[in-house]
This record gives sequence, structure tokens and C-alpha cells, in this order.
Amino acid sequence: MHLSEITHPNQLHGLSIHQLEQIARQIREKHLETVSTSGGHLGPGLGVVELTLGLYQTLDLDRDKVIWDVGHQAYPHKLITGRYDRFHTLRQKDGVAGYLKRCESRFDHFGAGHASTSISAALGMAIARDLRGENFKVAAIIGDGALTGGMALEAINHAGHLPNTNLLVVLNDNEMSISPNVGAIPRYLNKMRLSPPVQFLSDNLEEQFKHLPFVGESLKPELNRVKEGMKRLAVPKVGAVFEELGFTYMGPVDGHNLAELIGTFQEAHKHVGPVLVHVATTKGKGYAIAEKDQVSYHAQNPFTLATGKSLPPSKPKPPKYSKVFAETLIKLAEDNPKIIGITAAMATGTGLEKLQAKLPKQYIDVGIAEQHAVTLAAGLACEGMRPVAAIYSTFLQRAFDQIVHDVCIQNLPVFFCLDRAGIVGVDGPTHQGMYDIAYLRSLPNMVLMAPKDEAELQRMIVTGIDHTDGPIAVRYPRGSGHGVPLMEEGWEPLPIGKAELLRQGDDILLVGYGTMVYPAMQTAEILSEHGVEATVINARFAKPLDTELILPRAQQLGRVVTLEEGCLMGGFGSALAEALLDEGIQVPVLRLGVPDALVDHAEPNQSKTTLGLMPAQMAEKILQRFELEQTSPELTVG
Amino acid sequence: MHLSEITHPNQLHGLSIHQLEQIARQIREKHLETVSTSGGHLGPGLGVVELTLGLYQTLDLDRDKVIWDVGHQAYPHKLITGRYDRFHTLRQKDGVAGYLKRCESRFDHFGAGHASTSISAALGMAIARDLRGENFKVAAIIGDGALTGGMALEAINHAGHLPNTNLLVVLNDNEMSISPNVGAIPRYLNKMRLSPPVQFLSDNLEEQFKHLPFVGESLKPELNRVKEGMKRLAVPKVGAVFEELGFTYMGPVDGHNLAELIGTFQEAHKHVGPVLVHVATTKGKGYAIAEKDQVSYHAQNPFTLATGKSLPPSKPKPPKYSKVFAETLIKLAEDNPKIIGITAAMATGTGLEKLQAKLPKQYIDVGIAEQHAVTLAAGLACEGMRPVAAIYSTFLQRAFDQIVHDVCIQNLPVFFCLDRAGIVGVDGPTHQGMYDIAYLRSLPNMVLMAPKDEAELQRMIVTGIDHTDGPIAVRYPRGSGHGVPLMEEGWEPLPIGKAELLRQGDDILLVGYGTMVYPAMQTAEILSEHGVEATVINARFAKPLDTELILPRAQQLGRVVTLEEGCLMGGFGSALAEALLDEGIQVPVLRLGVPDALVDHAEPNQSKTTLGLMPAQMAEKILQRFELEQTSPELTVG
Repeated sequence: MHLSEITHPNQLHGLSIHQLEQIARQIREKHLETVSTSGGHLGPGLGVVELTLGLYQTLDLDRDKVIWDVGHQAYPHKLITGRYDRFHTLRQKDGVAGYLKRCESRFDHFGAGHASTSISAALGMAIARDLRGENFKVAAIIGDGALTGGMALEAINHAGHLPNTNLLVVLNDNEMSISPNVGAIPRYLNKMRLSPPVQFLSDNLEEQFKHLPFVGESLKPELNRVKEGMKRLAVPKVGAVFEELGFTYMGPVDGHNLAELIGTFQEAHKHVGPVLVHVATTKGKGYAIAEKDQVSYHAQNPFTLATGKSLPPSKPKPPKYSKVFAETLIKLAEDNPKIIGITAAMATGTGLEKLQAKLPKQYIDVGIAEQHAVTLAAGLACEGMRPVAAIYSTFLQRAFDQIVHDVCIQNLPVFFCLDRAGIVGVDGPTHQGMYDIAYLRSLPNMVLMAPKDEAELQRMIVTGIDHTDGPIAVRYPRGSGHGVPLMEEGWEPLPIGKAELLRQGDDILLVGYGTMVYPAMQTAEILSEHGVEATVINARFAKPLDTELILPRAQQLGRVVTLEEGCLMGGFGSALAEALLDEGIQVPVLRLGVPDALVDHAEPNQSKTTLGLMPAQMAEKILQRFELEQTSPELTVG
Repeated sequence: MHLSEITHPNQLHGLSIHQLEQIARQIREKHLETVSTSGGHLGPGLGVVELTLGLYQTLDLDRDKVIWDVGHQAYPHKLITGRYDRFHTLRQKDGVAGYLKRCESRFDHFGAGHASTSISAALGMAIARDLRGENFKVAAIIGDGALTGGMALEAINHAGHLPNTNLLVVLNDNEMSISPNVGAIPRYLNKMRLSPPVQFLSDNLEEQFKHLPFVGESLKPELNRVKEGMKRLAVPKVGAVFEELGFTYMGPVDGHNLAELIGTFQEAHKHVGPVLVHVATTKGKGYAIAEKDQVSYHAQNPFTLATGKSLPPSKPKPPKYSKVFAETLIKLAEDNPKIIGITAAMATGTGLEKLQAKLPKQYIDVGIAEQHAVTLAAGLACEGMRPVAAIYSTFLQRAFDQIVHDVCIQNLPVFFCLDRAGIVGVDGPTHQGMYDIAYLRSLPNMVLMAPKDEAELQRMIVTGIDHTDGPIAVRYPRGSGHGVPLMEEGWEPLPIGKAELLRQGDDILLVGYGTMVYPAMQTAEILSEHGVEATVINARFAKPLDTELILPRAQQLGRVVTLEEGCLMGGFGSALAEALLDEGIQVPVLRLGVPDALVDHAEPNQSKTTLGLMPAQMAEKILQRFELEQTSPELTVG
């Protein structure tokens, strides 16, 4: 049977180990072929090929449900659940998503782009099953990195307390998040990987007996009985932590040995209550280049399979915002030992790996633990440090309460650097950084900034470090800057709450925030071609808003447009609308941004086109809304 | 020495056990006297009197720092850190706060009203200390309930990985959150409480040896050596879970034995790296009535010390919103087995204890684990259940990402019931339910409701259960309803997104949301006395907004006032402002609500007065803003 013939995972039933191994090989080939062409997550999927096949052979996928934590490890799952034919459209607009989505397949029982959610979701399904008196199996597959996320541990605390609720947790232990894991739990797992259960026990025993001063031959039978007795003692077996927390622990299992996996899963299904199967896998398995460099090959842009080298971009690109962020921070940190960069398992994505390499003492990776990251930062701030929490906009959602309760209420100077704010592109809805302006601006004491380009990001990093009065945040997008010259001097902070006037025109006021400032300027140029002259302001701060600069011009010009890359409900435009109304200024306001709907995976410019956020589209909307083309020249000049 | 003479905790140094016991007695007396008079948290503080005194005797509080998790256990701490004289002002406006606040005392190193934050904050301080080359001690005191919160476990994962960072975690194990704890971690702790370490080990050994078929006298010396050897084996000692996670575990210690506590803490301070001291305490210790009924005496309204009976309220009060919520839910759940009420360790506060008593299978307490609660609900919803997540507004902040990522993005029908929304009164800033309208309304697929009174809450519970198209939330306040008749029949759901017209007037439009609808009506009456006639709308839904009913009237009347009990930045008024501007309606809007500042502890009406949210104050603001008293009758009529 060839992989392409598998449209339902139950077709795996009855296949021999040899046949499964062939399927595994075909999955890897297809996986590599697709990701090397289209880009995407590589290492996670390659690591779970046998795990997926082995588990699925022991399940009836018409009834049983598998919940994958962070969908990016589920490419093999996609390939055997009816998406082989379309798999080449991976992460393309209208194509197969890079994560799991309930609407994409009936085998995707729970979508996920963020980590640590699977056990909670699976437990919910298991409880529902039992209440209805049904008896299908529910399995959650979670990485060792995701297990450091608090909510996964909350779920274990709950599941371990339900001895009659059947739940299989498969721990995919590849010793990595994106970077090598940190923390006591991964270390504990690693210790177990190195010490399979039986060996561990007997090694210890023999070792101890060796240290006895003398054991005569005549005592041997007695001592053997002692040994037997000791086995009945609660000697700390591998997995004791999970056993103490109410789980039946099985493992570690070689995650690339199909026979061992199938045997273990079959055994696991016989147990009542929560079971944890600890599977040791190798990230990137089967592609030597990825096995050797697991960090780089966690996810990749298109690359040449033979060499693993990324295909060169069609033209050289300006530096990424992350890079500018990290290099600016390092420059400041070299002179200021109080600066501490904090990441939640995103050293490469945030650029902080550079800080780690250069100033390791001023770098902290807390694991996939955004909540702890923020309150740890608050603790550092109490002691006069300058903590910089570099967390993607979408992941910072997980620390919302910590931002409110530990940072804002206490007015502690934590500097939040929100990478991937706005439209993130091919990662899709779970990763869009849409809500940060809305969820942060309602919090007292918070200052919010967004740069128009990478040079302004530098200024804002300086500003954030300089601002010791309370919390401050900067949001910046995924991807490359505009190629503007970077700041060599003039490392002065920006005045808090002061905007920048970029263009003067008498017909209309455009106020752009962050990434929408350049598009605002482009829009103004298009409007100009239609005889409409716009004043353009770079807001710089969503909070506090520069009412002094903006409001008089709004009143004077009588037409206001706000431009933002974020949700319109409660976002930047909403902030400006509030300010106008509070001051009793009644002027029409057109708010351009992301409407109240999810933004699917696509290239960022495709998403922006769909949303009508390309300059030509925005110019058209503005002309229509304000009926500027139909009015006489006198009126448009105003 | 008398307690009243202690203004600095270092005065405890050198006191004998006997003297400390006297101080302990005085703390309990003062604690009981104050809380029985003013109300407040009782059991938590009484349980940690010896823990506090014992720990503080081993610390130099001019240098060392103690971080209390959830400040409500820190009343004894307050009494020995200079607040004895003012302690009678507990939880009163401008008086001593019910939780810890950095601005209240230099000994309050980290404020807290939410659980599970202390280890993160303490670790941040310890890391800062080490970076600066200082060497003071840092201790976090956390309850066993708070230890089920994911962020505490994230912090343990991090701290356990730092073998050279000295950090003392004191586990105050009283076997309770507010209600008895649930979960595998509390069960594990309980097992340890029942099995002190040495006894555990030796019992097991002797037991095993007993089972050996024959041990002759001549073998005894050898066997003793075997026993010694076995002690060197990693026999699962008490605390193995913590030890495996990198902590030195000590305990369990009798939390009411000062000598044992002091000895253990002194020993703990000698260790390098993270140490966990497990202290077994009794909630309510020293007040027999509270020891017997630990749930009721977690916190209390004023009561008679001799009997423990609450003082009768001056006049009978209408039923509380929580009660109406719970009783309505039970009524529905009796007929609908799909309804599952979920609480995160707030069975009494949310009223769900009634559901537990009546329909235990349809009730889940997940422990202090809001994140898990929400994603568990999402899992239940996937299986066709009707999960009802009853979580206070302020605590739901902790599950923000789960609401976005697991519920809204997947459009799953989870029903969120947000108790304590708006001004909560004496609990202060950490508990104010100010941000929920803002943080929920920007999320796609979410429906938001708020009832004007307890009868409308009933309708909204019906509506929430009926709404299976996606997520829906209802917010309602702390405290009693208006005493309106409760719904006996007419259990039909409300139409989603439809408001209610309550009053017609030609001069101005008042749009109230939830708790501000009655005040809007009262304000309208006051305005009427000034010759200004208001139309009053009960919005019912903040999302979707009833633009059909509201917008034409806004345009017609030309003056709009929004009234809400929540943050103005991004809140309900902001939603209405957006709707007006999107439709091109330029009318003046006065938004009344909570400005961009923290609201301190005080009686709710005191807070509302401070905020200018009492009807007379609002009427005055309206008259001023719209210059209605200075205009001629013709103009006011419009």
C-alpha cells in the first residue's frame, strides 16, 4: 500500500511492521518534499512519524479521538487523514493549514497553535464521554516543552485526581521546544530517558550490595530474597513524579521503534484511569541535516533537500525587526547590567539567542511559561532591574492576568516587547497578533508604542529601557523592516506620548500606528493623485495618545482616518475616537484595520488585500466614505 | 513584650518560644477582634500565626524579603510590621487593605490578591540579588491550593533548574483553597502529611523484612548492613516529586509548633539552591468554630465571637446575584444533563456549591486553575455538552488566551458567567472586575451580555444555555439584586443583540449596560426634575450592539450618554462610539464609567461616589457637559 492510497487512518489496521515502516518512509519523503518547497515546520513532524503510525494502529479513528498539542507536529497525522493530495498546498492561502483546525478535517478534534492545551481539551472530551456512557478512547499528544506550560500541569493535577476517567497522555519527548528545553521537568524527563526502568532498579541494587563489606556464599539465597522483597518496596521507579500525581507511567519507549510503540500503546489501553506513555523521539528524525541542527530545522523557509541550505531570497531583504530589536537591546545591555532579556522558549524567534550568546547572565529562558515570565519580570523590576519580556503578541495573551495583577496594578517598570504583532501570515488565526492594542490599552499605568520602521524600533527600545515610571510595551511586526538606515547615534529616548507629523495637507487627517504609517503615507500619495491632500501623523503611542498634536488637526480638517494592523474593536482607532468624543469634537472618523473576524493563513500581503488594507484599497475607501471625488474642488480643499 | 509594641519584625529576634507563643495569642486575639467587627479573611491568617513568627525569627527583615501568595493570609504579617495601631481600619476606605500592597508597607514586597504568583516574583528577586552579588534571603509562602495554579508550577520548573539560586518556598498546607482542594497535587501533599519521612522509610523496610520467609539471628548484622545500604538507595522519600524537580524538600512540619518551625527554617537557610519547606497548618487555628467550619470561616462578614454567628443585616436583603445564578442554572440543569457547571476553586463564591449538592455529576471543580477550566470547557463543548464556566471577572483574566485560542477561534459554545464584574468593594484593586468588557469584546464570535437586575440575569442564563452558535458571556455584580420578582415562567431566551427601551424622552439618550441601567433610570428622573427628558435604553448586549434600536435614537436626540461599571478605555461606551462613527453619525457622546486608574478598596457606594457614578453626580455631569441648564427651553427640547 502506498501512502497516497490512505484516506482514512483505520487503513493502517492490520499492516505489518514492515509495511508501516514503508509508510513511515513515504510520510517522511512527502513531508520533506513539501516543506522544502513551501516552507513550514520540519523537525516536529519528522520526529513523530512512528509515534503517529503506532498509536493510530491501536485506535479506531472512527470513534477514538487524538488531540495534538501545537498542531505543527501533526503533519504526519494530516498525511494519513485524507490530506495527502492537497498537502502540497501547505500554508498557502486556501490550502492546508500549518496547524490543526477543526474545520479542516473530522480527524482534527481540537485546533492548536499555542502549546500546552491538549490535556485539558482531551480531559473535557473524556469527561463528556463518561457522562454519556460511551467508551471511546481519548489521547493527548504533548511535547516535553509544552509540559512546562502551567496549564498542562493544571490539567495533570486534575486528570490525576480522576482514577476512573480513561485518558491517554502521550509525552513526545524530543528534549526540545524550539530550542533545547530548560527547567526541572525536562531535566527529570531526560534523567528517565537515560535510565530505563528495570536497569535503573537493578543497577542500584547491585551497586548497593557491592558496598556491603562481605557477603558470603551461604548468604546468597537470603540476599536474593531480600532483593526480591526490595522490589516490592516503593523504590523510586522511573516516572515516580507522574505516578505520585495519579498517572500510570509507562516508558520511556523508543519513539522510532514501531513494535515497541504498538506494544506499549496496546498495554496502555488496558489500564483504567489516566496513563502517561513517555516516548523518546528525535526531532528531525530521518533527515540527518535536521537531526544535527534541530533548532534551525524546527521550521524552515524553502530549502534544497540535498544540502539543507535555504533557497536564496529573490532579492536581499532588509534586516528583520527581531534582529534589530535584539542587536539594539544588546548594545544597551552591554552598558547597563540591569537589563535582563526574558524569553518564554522563543530564543531564536525573538532574536534573544544573540543576547544569550553575548551576555548570558543578562538572559533568561523560562520555558514555555509566559505567565511565569511576566511575574518573574515583575520580581526583577522590584529589585531595580530592567526586565525586558520579549514575547510574541499572541503568546502574551497567556500572561494577561500577570500583566494586570502583577505589573500594572503595582506600576512596575517591565518592558514588554511584542514581536509578531499584527498580521503574521502563513501561521494563521492562532498566531495573528491582533488583540494586543485592545487588551493592553485598557490597563492603567501602561504605555503603548509601535514604530513605523526599524530605526524607530531602535528609538523605542531606548525609550522602553529609559522609562522607569511603570510598564511600557512596544509592538512590532513579523518580518523585515523597510531598509532604512539604522541609528548610529542619537540614542535618546522618545518623549512619551508624543506623535510625529509626517505630512501636511488640508483635506483630511490620516493617523497611522506602527506598521500602518508607511501605508498611510502611500495612501496619502494616492489621494493626492485624486486631488485630496492629507495630513499624515505617525501616532507612535496608542497610549497615552498625543491629543495635543492630533485633536486640533482632526477638528480643523474635519475628516479623520485611523490606520492600524490590529482589531478594530477596542483598538487604536477606538482610542482616537474616544479622545475626540471626550473633547467634544464631532468629526467623521473612518477606522481602517482588522474587522471582527478571524484572519486565515495566507501571505501577509494576501491577508492585507483580503482585509482591504493595501494603500490603493484604503485610498478608495477613504474617497468613497468621505465622498471626496464627487465633491467640488472647493469643498475638497475645504 | 506586647504585640502592640512590635513595630518592626526584627523585634522578634531573641524572644523565647514562650514569649513567641504569647505574641501568637495576641495576634489571634487582635485578628479575631478585628475581623469579627469589620469582616474579612479569618481562617487563612489564623492558620499561619506560628509560621509567620517562626519564619520571621530566622530572618533579618531589614534585608530579607518575604513574598506572601494571596495577601489574605498575611494579616499576622501586617500585625507585626507596623500596622497594629491601624489594624481596626481593615478593609475600610483609606484603611489597611485586605491584601498586600507595596505602597502600604516596606515589608510588603509584592502585592497579591490572585493566587500562585509568589514563587515567580520571589525567584525574580532572587535572580536580581545574585546578579548584584548580594546575599539576602528570599522566601515565598504559598498555599497548597495556590500550588495547583499553573504559574506556580511553571515557577517551580524554573527554580528547580537553578541549583545555585537560593530560594525558600514555604508551602502552607492547610488542605484547603476556600473549599477543600481537589487534584492530584493536594492528594499527594496529604499523603505526605500522613506519613512523616523517617517513619515512612523505616516502616516500609521493617515491613518488607517481615515478609522474608526466615531471617536467622546470625544474619541480623548482615541485614542491618543491607538496611543501611538501602538508605543510600534513592528510596522514595516523602517529597520525592519536589526532590525530582530540583528542590530540597523538608517536612512535613507541624505548622503550630514554633520550635519545630524555627529549627526547620534555620536548617533550610543552610541549603544552597531551592528549598521547599512543607508546613502542615490548620485553617482557622485557635478559633474552634472556624476550625470546624473552614469553608464558611475562610472569610466572614461581621460576626459575634462567642457564637460565630453573623450579625443580622440591618434590613433583609434581596437574594445575591450568585444565588440567583446558581438556582437558575440548577433549574435548567435538572432538565438538561448536558449542562456542566465548572468552577476554579470558587464553589461557594460562585454559588456552584448548590449545583454540586444537587447534581454532583454536572459539577466540576478544577482547583485554582482558570486556564485549564476554560480549555476543559472547550473540550466538553466539542462533545456537545453545555459547559458553564463560572469565574469571577478578575480571575477570568488568567484564562484570556484560552478564551481567544481555544474557544473564540474555534467558535465553541462555552458559556462564561462572570461574577464580581464591576466594582467589588473592599477587596480592592486586585479584585475589581473592570476589564472584562474591554478584553472580551475584541474577540471574534463572542457575545456579551449584562443584566439590569436579578430577574434579567435569569433570562440571560437561559439565553446563554440556549446559544449554541458559539461563545457567550454574561457579567453580573457582586452582592444583592434589586429585590424584583424572580422569573416563575417565561423561560424563553432573549433575542441575541436586542436591547430594551425603558423610557422615552426627547432631549437626550442614556444607554446603560448591566448594573448601570437602574442608575441610568434614576439619573433620568433627576434630569427630568431639571426639565430634561431622557430616553433610556437597557443595552443588554455589549456585543453585538443593538444598533437598530440605539443609533436612530442617538441621531435623533443628538446627545448620547453611556453608563457602564467598567473601564472606559475600550469598554461599552467605546463600543457605542465605534458604532456611531462607523455609521457616520456625529453626535456628542459622554461616556460615564471607570476612568483609567485603579480603584482602591472601599464600600462599593464609596467607590462609586469617588468615581462620580452616583445618579446625582451623573445627572450633574450630563447637565454640565451638554450645557442643558443654560440653554433655552426650545433648545433643550431639541
